Amino acid sequence: MAGRAEVAGGHAGGHKLWGGRFAGGPSPLLEAINRSIGTDLRLWPHDVRLSKAWAEGLEAAGVVSAEERAELHRGLDIVAERIAAGEPPTAADEDVHTFIDRLLHLALADSPVGRAAAGKLHTGRSRNDQVATATRLWALAACDELDAAARDLQGVLVARAEDLQDALMPAYTHLQRAQPVSAAHWLLSHVWPLQRDRRRLADARARVAELPLGSGAVAGTAFPVPRELLRERLGFAALAQNSIDAVGDRDFVAELLFVLAQLGAHLSRLAEDLILFGSQEFGFVRFGDGFSTGSSMMPQKRNPDALELARGSAARLLGDLVAVLGTLKGLPSGYNKDLQDDKRALFGAVDAALVVLPAVAGTVAELTFDRARMRAAVTPAMMATDLADLLVRRGGTFREAHAAVGALVREAEERAVELDALPAGSYGAAHPLLAEGAAAALGAEASVGLRQAVGGTGGEAVRAQLAAARELVQSHNEPGATNGVEQTG
Amino acid sequence: MAGRAEVAGGHAGGHKLWGGRFAGGPSPLLEAINRSIGTDLRLWPHDVRLSKAWAEGLEAAGVVSAEERAELHRGLDIVAERIAAGEPPTAADEDVHTFIDRLLHLALADSPVGRAAAGKLHTGRSRNDQVATATRLWALAACDELDAAARDLQGVLVARAEDLQDALMPAYTHLQRAQPVSAAHWLLSHVWPLQRDRRRLADARARVAELPLGSGAVAGTAFPVPRELLRERLGFAALAQNSIDAVGDRDFVAELLFVLAQLGAHLSRLAEDLILFGSQEFGFVRFGDGFSTGSSMMPQKRNPDALELARGSAARLLGDLVAVLGTLKGLPSGYNKDLQDDKRALFGAVDAALVVLPAVAGTVAELTFDRARMRAAVTPAMMATDLADLLVRRGGTFREAHAAVGALVREAEERAVELDALPAGSYGAAHPLLAEGAAAALGAEASVGLRQAVGGTGGEAVRAQLAAARELVQSHNEPGATNGVEQTG
Amino acid sequence: MAGRAEVAGGHAGGHKLWGGRFAGGPSPLLEAINRSIGTDLRLWPHDVRLSKAWAEGLEAAGVVSAEERAELHRGLDIVAERIAAGEPPTAADEDVHTFIDRLLHLALADSPVGRAAAGKLHTGRSRNDQVATATRLWALAACDELDAAARDLQGVLVARAEDLQDALMPAYTHLQRAQPVSAAHWLLSHVWPLQRDRRRLADARARVAELPLGSGAVAGTAFPVPRELLRERLGFAALAQNSIDAVGDRDFVAELLFVLAQLGAHLSRLAEDLILFGSQEFGFVRFGDGFSTGSSMMPQKRNPDALELARGSAARLLGDLVAVLGTLKGLPSGYNKDLQDDKRALFGAVDAALVVLPAVAGTVAELTFDRARMRAAVTPAMMATDLADLLVRRGGTFREAHAAVGALVREAEERAVELDALPAGSYGAAHPLLAEGAAAALGAEASVGLRQAVGGTGGEAVRAQLAAARELVQSHNEPGATNGVEQTG
Amino acid sequence: MAGRAEVAGGHAGGHKLWGGRFAGGPSPLLEAINRSIGTDLRLWPHDVRLSKAWAEGLEAAGVVSAEERAELHRGLDIVAERIAAGEPPTAADEDVHTFIDRLLHLALADSPVGRAAAGKLHTGRSRNDQVATATRLWALAACDELDAAARDLQGVLVARAEDLQDALMPAYTHLQRAQPVSAAHWLLSHVWPLQRDRRRLADARARVAELPLGSGAVAGTAFPVPRELLRERLGFAALAQNSIDAVGDRDFVAELLFVLAQLGAHLSRLAEDLILFGSQEFGFVRFGDGFSTGSSMMPQKRNPDALELARGSAARLLGDLVAVLGTLKGLPSGYNKDLQDDKRALFGAVDAALVVLPAVAGTVAELTFDRARMRAAVTPAMMATDLADLLVRRGGTFREAHAAVGALVREAEERAVELDALPAGSYGAAHPLLAEGAAAALGAEASVGLRQAVGGTGGEAVRAQLAAARELVQSHNEPGATNGVEQTG
Repeated sequence: MAGRAEVAGGHAGGHKLWGGRFAGGPSPLLEAINRSIGTDLRLWPHDVRLSKAWAEGLEAAGVVSAEERAELHRGLDIVAERIAAGEPPTAADEDVHTFIDRLLHLALADSPVGRAAAGKLHTGRSRNDQVATATRLWALAACDELDAAARDLQGVLVARAEDLQDALMPAYTHLQRAQPVSAAHWLLSHVWPLQRDRRRLADARARVAELPLGSGAVAGTAFPVPRELLRERLGFAALAQNSIDAVGDRDFVAELLFVLAQLGAHLSRLAEDLILFGSQEFGFVRFGDGFSTGSSMMPQKRNPDALELARGSAARLLGDLVAVLGTLKGLPSGYNKDLQDDKRALFGAVDAALVVLPAVAGTVAELTFDRARMRAAVTPAMMATDLADLLVRRGGTFREAHAAVGALVREAEERAVELDALPAGSYGAAHPLLAEGAAAALGAEASVGLRQAVGGTGGEAVRAQLAAARELVQSHNEPGATNGVEQTG
Repeated sequence: MAGRAEVAGGHAGGHKLWGGRFAGGPSPLLEAINRSIGTDLRLWPHDVRLSKAWAEGLEAAGVVSAEERAELHRGLDIVAERIAAGEPPTAADEDVHTFIDRLLHLALADSPVGRAAAGKLHTGRSRNDQVATATRLWALAACDELDAAARDLQGVLVARAEDLQDALMPAYTHLQRAQPVSAAHWLLSHVWPLQRDRRRLADARARVAELPLGSGAVAGTAFPVPRELLRERLGFAALAQNSIDAVGDRDFVAELLFVLAQLGAHLSRLAEDLILFGSQEFGFVRFGDGFSTGSSMMPQKRNPDALELARGSAARLLGDLVAVLGTLKGLPSGYNKDLQDDKRALFGAVDAALVVLPAVAGTVAELTFDRARMRAAVTPAMMATDLADLLVRRGGTFREAHAAVGALVREAEERAVELDALPAGSYGAAHPLLAEGAAAALGAEASVGLRQAVGGTGGEAVRAQLAAARELVQSHNEPGATNGVEQTG
Repeated sequence: MAGRAEVAGGHAGGHKLWGGRFAGGPSPLLEAINRSIGTDLRLWPHDVRLSKAWAEGLEAAGVVSAEERAELHRGLDIVAERIAAGEPPTAADEDVHTFIDRLLHLALADSPVGRAAAGKLHTGRSRNDQVATATRLWALAACDELDAAARDLQGVLVARAEDLQDALMPAYTHLQRAQPVSAAHWLLSHVWPLQRDRRRLADARARVAELPLGSGAVAGTAFPVPRELLRERLGFAALAQNSIDAVGDRDFVAELLFVLAQLGAHLSRLAEDLILFGSQEFGFVRFGDGFSTGSSMMPQKRNPDALELARGSAARLLGDLVAVLGTLKGLPSGYNKDLQDDKRALFGAVDAALVVLPAVAGTVAELTFDRARMRAAVTPAMMATDLADLLVRRGGTFREAHAAVGALVREAEERAVELDALPAGSYGAAHPLLAEGAAAALGAEASVGLRQAVGGTGGEAVRAQLAAARELVQSHNEPGATNGVEQTG
Repeated sequence: MAGRAEVAGGHAGGHKLWGGRFAGGPSPLLEAINRSIGTDLRLWPHDVRLSKAWAEGLEAAGVVSAEERAELHRGLDIVAERIAAGEPPTAADEDVHTFIDRLLHLALADSPVGRAAAGKLHTGRSRNDQVATATRLWALAACDELDAAARDLQGVLVARAEDLQDALMPAYTHLQRAQPVSAAHWLLSHVWPLQRDRRRLADARARVAELPLGSGAVAGTAFPVPRELLRERLGFAALAQNSIDAVGDRDFVAELLFVLAQLGAHLSRLAEDLILFGSQEFGFVRFGDGFSTGSSMMPQKRNPDALELARGSAARLLGDLVAVLGTLKGLPSGYNKDLQDDKRALFGAVDAALVVLPAVAGTVAELTFDRARMRAAVTPAMMATDLADLLVRRGGTFREAHAAVGALVREAEERAVELDALPAGSYGAAHPLLAEGAAAALGAEASVGLRQAVGGTGGEAVRAQLAAARELVQSHNEPGATNGVEQTG
């Protein structure tokens, strides 16, 4: 929506900032294609806020008087109230900026000072720096909402993990049962990716918070507006340092979309796990009524709709990222109209994430875990490596361990029994160091109990992990940190 | 929106087809995430049409009587009228199918036969095959609209080319002036890619036209509904041959999105050419008032908004394709809820293409070409290879030609004159075979005139090309053909 | 690699076709970036073939004599032999075209006629039309190989389906057990998507087969080379109709990549099904030794590596498509160097598909199916809708059916028995029309047996489907057809 | 390549860590698909390094003795020397880990202690945590190289900007001349995006530096290896906190690819600017001999190959990102073989960036700027808004300014003169406040001189910007900071 009359615009022509000079009017088709208010209306609170800051800047620059600035603030407050109360844009309002501009003139129509002030508000700024700033203000708020929603999901995962520390289940690789783990360990394995997402979000936020306002159409503002004042009023962290860059920079949109696409991949992994575990074949979890659908006649089905939509969101968020990075590809510098589509992608992606995150959290919150089925899926064969580890621990070499355990595995297959159900003598026959206590090593609890190194599934390690995870949930995070654990050295 | 109560659904519970059995009700969040009517309402004419065909199928299967079928048709006509007249869905209508179902019951409420019939309409079908069919019906109509819009753009390009056959301009490679061409030739270079798009669209359309209806939820319908009758009534070309495939197949969506993404790339190329040519530096074209924007105070600017949005559409259409192919990736067979998002991507992409195509056509239609500047950009240096070709044609070898022309080029640089302004003796000095008529070979018209092979820029060749292009514009196209030119051999 | 000295090139400077004029030489870095022979060497048989055709064209145009043409053919045959025998390019050969050109001069060095002819071969052509043509020749061969590999996979699926017609298993929606189907039906559900892929491939092939040769650098060739002769010699279906389009057109690459990306999505679906079914929890299939990996100590694991890589290929093929469509986005018309990267993407994608397709076929061929576990996964609850259908078939309304079956489902849950194990009186109590024969309707075989409409899972329908699928495997396919089944009407 | 025998592996079977138990051997096709050494050989220095650290960890855990640890270090040093000297893998070495393992056994074959130690090295680790760690070590080094290459490009841009502070040129929006700027300002507009890339790279690096080693196959190591010791030895910043997450986490690959894709978009923008400016129509820059190609017969052409390839790299890097995020989508947790393809994408993307960055830097370094043509492209019409600003500054309202300047623009058009060539009286006639000094306001230097706010194109502002940019080039950067400028407040 920026890009028309970017440099400066009068309003003689009924708040269409351009085009008065053209002999033929614009095609209705162009109006359709250009009209962005359907998308950008939601920027209004941010556009109002930046206009109030700009009014202060103009006052500091000597363009408007203190009285005029006060009138502008008064008028903008009226505008905000009206839009908040539901005032709709008309067909003539092509974007949120012209809509607000029109309402501002209306609001101040009775006041001579106000009328003059309204006519000066666009001095020294352009739709190019204005829309970039308003979009960033929106994005800053979105970052905070997204962080809260991701934290909420972490909170639910941690809460469920608290209760499942001693529940054992298989961990899978290649979707084949691999080794026993605590169910809490598995749940927590989804907390850390979310933490990386939150860190990325915080890092991205720091770059969103660079202020374009004051960059004019492309060459910088020609009035001595103190940009530092604008930055402070609008809560930005830094000033964009080059006006050409500032009006064309959409890195912040692409970076947020990447953060969301990566988040989407994480949600798809959690969803995939749960969809699998909720199948009749796995049967580890049962979906609650709040987030699954079924049929009155097919009671065996509990369709995990929210999870499937979460899984799919990984693809749509990736598509949005491709749309924005693809848009940037090949563009020359400065503002180009192609950039207008950034908001469609950004708003859609953030909206999707803000629906999917709580839906997944809700789904996890109301899962019922079937500990018996989880435990039953842990079979002695999964502990064969533990047996080999035992032999190594008792002084055997890896080669011996390998040969001995291989022989026991074969014997169990031939006898058609589980590995822990071999005759007592078999173990010693396979290797003298296994003569005693071998069957005990084949217990899942024993296997788990040995894995106490940081990040392992042993009880102590999981308790420590839970404590660390709990802290993540309670704290907001700062850019630039690593994963929330004290760095050493 | 399919997927709930896919197999069969009663309507006792107020037209929510599932969930009556659940102790806890669904979460409002799930309802929000599941509610698809905002997207799929536009399917209504197709859903009504398929329901009428299904009623006939049920009659043939002996499930409804002739009278009941007639009542269903009457009721569905009433429903269509009401929706066409603006009847909005209510909060309880989660998707277009339940909305129509509710209205149908209302429409037939006074007729005992109708009431019974309405209760039977869902017999043997499921939302899984229903939504797949309705979406395909929508897509078939979209194919036709897209073909027409692409043809219109071809028509405009051809019409402009008619007038520019004798206007010369540079063709560029690497954005460096390469060789002179007819401006018609350049315009026509954008017609053939559109023709490939139309062919791809026609090929894709043949695959859209495979009918899923009769596949039930996943295993096929349990009633002897003659699918061939459905196919014929709904204008499909073939029957989907496997029910599991049919309910999960979204190839047709992905393929249409690919066709659009490729079209987008073509529009971006045309747009890029025109944006360049409309810059003050090139100055070959001037944008009309209908499809460019400017500023009353910056009269030198004519911002080609429609072209920039067309260029950007290549990226957003690619993003939509990624969203859909990414959604399919990793899904198991059968219907999965993830597929619901296909319509958002498909509808959005088709809408975008149907706005962009006419906007580009409009832009091209009102371009003003500056023949003088185009011609002036053709400089003698561009004909150096023609000079070498002349020498080859007169019997020289390529090596001689290369050396001679290289020497002339250097001499022209040293003298700071154009290549055709060297002293007459220079040519003969460079090579005896160039002693006469060399300067004439450096004429742009001569260069162009030699390129009469099919597809070249010579006058005859361009006339033939124009004639072929005109035919493309006049004819609809059939799947499977190549680019509209007679195949030989 | 095209793009340098596109229009015509002498070879004085040691087969570097450009640059002699530059004061400073090219940077080694540029040479590195430009050097494409690592990628394009494999084009050599196609480049040799097109040069032989071009020699004929030049003869027809009067540029070379019959004797020269014969020498060129002799020389090119020698070149082909040498490369086939392992002759490596040297550091000076920047691309396959210069490599072949150098070898040709060597091969004909002893023959005065040959030397002259070698110096004329590049007359009237350019690397722009040359590389486009060679790449298309390569792509045509790739289409045929891909079609054969896809057909082989279809063949394996059909062969396995033959043996599994009477094996029942659940079909899934939302990964929840939905309805019983024949295992053959499930296997065949993966044959039809491959058929669509083959159709798309055939349609794409028709567009690959448009000949650019004769388009010169961008404006068409200046010599009267009969392009129709070239087309016929090289086996193309049609001539590119516009030289500007012809040298910049990479649609055929993008379209092939789309076909592969869609194929990848299909392979990912088949892989996902099999990975699930091969888990210990499902246990429907056991992976053979040829295409899975394991551990001598973890015998329970059979990692389906080939399937996982097939699943992943959906993503990498999509990435290749994005690379190529993204490359095209925003480019102006004519040849641009950016296009050089098309071959990296195309070759890599085709190579990947040609490894993955047979690996998946091999995996499927050596699967062991566990019919007992498949059948055991079909539970009576999955036939609740069949019970409702029975009631409808006996004259009940859907509403009655819904209420009656819902009541029976609840009773079964309360009694903790399967739906078919209720006391005989329960059915009649739920609805008089169910008083007899209700339990029989709950049999999986009965459910399947009712679904005989085209595409359903009933025995007759599956037999017909198998017959149709067998034909697909036996026949090559033609562009423009629909899915291999006779179209009616 | 990980994933086979992940948990532990003996080496009896000739260094194939799996499969001894299978009756049928693996298919050659599977070996082909699985064999990753073509891609991952370059990991060898990192794999050697991590093995040395792991040997220390095993010593601390009491698994190997100090003497054994020393032997392992000695053996690994020998291995490194041999590979560095060119020792090639054999057909039996399926990946870099087995290759190194084989060489290690060879290196220590003569030493009984060494032989025993070699057999113990794989104790407690798995290929899953090993490959994740080695890839991260590679990526850490890549981050540093990429940062240096980006900084070098910044350096070249800054150096060129130093000399062009007083050269004026148009800034463009919509590729239409918009406002005059300093050429230094335009060059610097490409420095800040690179700075954001470097910040993103630094932030990503912090997440790369989380150590997976010690996570075993999926459940954590069963030996008391102090992971903190490993972290310190390998230079990581933190420990991965969950073993399931650690072996499947490829966020770091996706994030690096995003950083590169965003960088690619920036390079494409710089390249697009330069390709435009190097066209004959713009003529602002002339490409040097080192990074452009041409034809000896087409001296007017200087094809900017390096820039075109840089522009295209935006697409290929985006494609690589899609490949990796698409791979992750839909995968369950734990290690899955699909992840193997991450290295192909990562290595290819980093290699491409490390070629393109210096090629662009080289191109910029040898540009010749044509100040006269740049200045000539700045026309008085571009200063119309400056005239309006003047009127506002003198106390006029925006509305008056708009009307007055509009009238002057029309008058200039009617008189067919530039805006600054109107009769002196015209300005006063348009508005009394313009009666004096109006023409002076239409000077480009005056326009530029007014834009002194931070980030503007005024001389003071550009000098400050240059100073800030110079600092970026001199300093390495730290994660989490904003764009290198002091944050206030």
